[in-house]
Amino acid sequence: MINNIAIVGGMHGNEVTGLHLVEHWANASDAITRPSFATHLFIGNPKAARLNRRYVDEDLNRCFAAAVLESDEKVTYESNRAFYLNQVIGPKGRPKHDFLIDMHTSTSNCGVMIIIIEPTSLNLSVAAYIMEKEPKARIHYIPSTSGDLPYMNSIAPNSLGIEVGPIPQGLIRSDSYHLTARVIGHSLDYLHHVNCGSPPIAPGSVEVYRLQEVVRYPEKNGLITGFIHSSLQDADYQQLNPGDPLFELFDGAIIPYRGDRPVYPVFINEAAYYDTRIAMSLCVKQQMPVRPSA
Amino acid sequence: MINNIAIVGGMHGNEVTGLHLVEHWANASDAITRPSFATHLFIGNPKAARLNRRYVDEDLNRCFAAAVLESDEKVTYESNRAFYLNQVIGPKGRPKHDFLIDMHTSTSNCGVMIIIIEPTSLNLSVAAYIMEKEPKARIHYIPSTSGDLPYMNSIAPNSLGIEVGPIPQGLIRSDSYHLTARVIGHSLDYLHHVNCGSPPIAPGSVEVYRLQEVVRYPEKNGLITGFIHSSLQDADYQQLNPGDPLFELFDGAIIPYRGDRPVYPVFINEAAYYDTRIAMSLCVKQQMPVRPSA
Repeated sequence: MINNIAIVGGMHGNEVTGLHLVEHWANASDAITRPSFATHLFIGNPKAARLNRRYVDEDLNRCFAAAVLESDEKVTYESNRAFYLNQVIGPKGRPKHDFLIDMHTSTSNCGVMIIIIEPTSLNLSVAAYIMEKEPKARIHYIPSTSGDLPYMNSIAPNSLGIEVGPIPQGLIRSDSYHLTARVIGHSLDYLHHVNCGSPPIAPGSVEVYRLQEVVRYPEKNGLITGFIHSSLQDADYQQLNPGDPLFELFDGAIIPYRGDRPVYPVFINEAAYYDTRIAMSLCVKQQMPVRPSA
Repeated sequence: MINNIAIVGGMHGNEVTGLHLVEHWANASDAITRPSFATHLFIGNPKAARLNRRYVDEDLNRCFAAAVLESDEKVTYESNRAFYLNQVIGPKGRPKHDFLIDMHTSTSNCGVMIIIIEPTSLNLSVAAYIMEKEPKARIHYIPSTSGDLPYMNSIAPNSLGIEVGPIPQGLIRSDSYHLTARVIGHSLDYLHHVNCGSPPIAPGSVEVYRLQEVVRYPEKNGLITGFIHSSLQDADYQQLNPGDPLFELFDGAIIPYRGDRPVYPVFINEAAYYDTRIAMSLCVKQQMPVRPSA
């Protein structure tokens, strides 16, 4: 039984779509209310939101590893904010909320990217339901490699990140705003059906884009020396083959993809990742089995 | 005779296309070299560029009014930076450079927006030449109302602002990068032809989108209450008629355009203007005569 759901907007202060949805729903709760559970709204990073920046001191959505939450050295705004959010949404491992939804936007051509860090049947079923309703939706599966992930969604096993794009930082677009709202609505609908014992029949398996590795921009002396090749710009989820162009250097040279098998890039040209030089994430496409979640 | 041309990138630190072009051309000057004049490159706001923000303390491109340049109270980073740039590019009224080009980007669907603040024949001729070469180019004419404008381009009578978009802040796109470079190339080609006494024949007149007024977002208690209506998003330069939808409020209500005659909006949903609540600029479309500039 799902009793409490947490919806977070503004985890990154300049991804304003989720922020405005949270503020709107606080005074118009019908859209997020279902009879079988309580929905609670949270603003992730209110100070960064006021400054219209991703973060104040460090990325809030990298502060939820247990080691950070439990550390006595909380210097940054975000490490303290993460502690607070973990208390009201979590705590991690014994969360007050049975399902978390974290709303983001991306400058990449992600459509609706449903980010799953734990492939529980419930997560995959909700994602499959969203994909059935929204043709632009895809699943990006980021498996835990360390055993403890730094994302807010790692507080609870059942959680989805929702990335909508492409959209610049710091503005609202009608299309992205309504698309995000619809995806939240689909998620709540499905979870309510699960509570009622009547979830729509889930497919036997769903297609996921499973993270393999991140690719960084070419650089020299700490400065990038090129950018995403025109043929790869906006080509998220599309097959990239060995030898295909990856980067164009300022001097005109082309850097090809040097892997030995096809991959599927996502988060291509995400503005927020320039500071870490990440140009894209490469995925393999695979089917994951979905067990009924009733 | 045009002897010296100044090209500026990074006037706004998170509009990185021009910044990277300036850095690239500094080591690959063939693209900006023509036999009949010298081209000098300038980075507008290097500190904001390092921070990946539009500005540090205030908008640099609003610090070039004579009153600001001559003031003894230079507290902000930008007012001091403007003083410096005015010394090396200008000074205003007696500039060392005969032609200025200031490279910008916009989140609006501006294509190539050529911004003219003085409708000199040379400015209009260069713009007409750019429009002949690039089908996405349009002229946005911002007439001086106060007699002294705050823009860097007000340093010299012959100057163009080049806005390319749509592109998010803080990233490079191959298409915008190459389009900006081509527009600079066309400008320099034309100016060189003028110097040689053989400019391509200018049209008798050019179409300009002349600024009438700015429109602000609806707001309440200091917070915006809505966003650009879906039918207007990305519809820059397209006719907006009285009664057409302008904004969609978070509560679902539609705010129509209440003017009494058709207008042409530009800078629709520019992310950088949210802090001043500017949603778009409304223009009238008119023909301006171009006299030969040889």
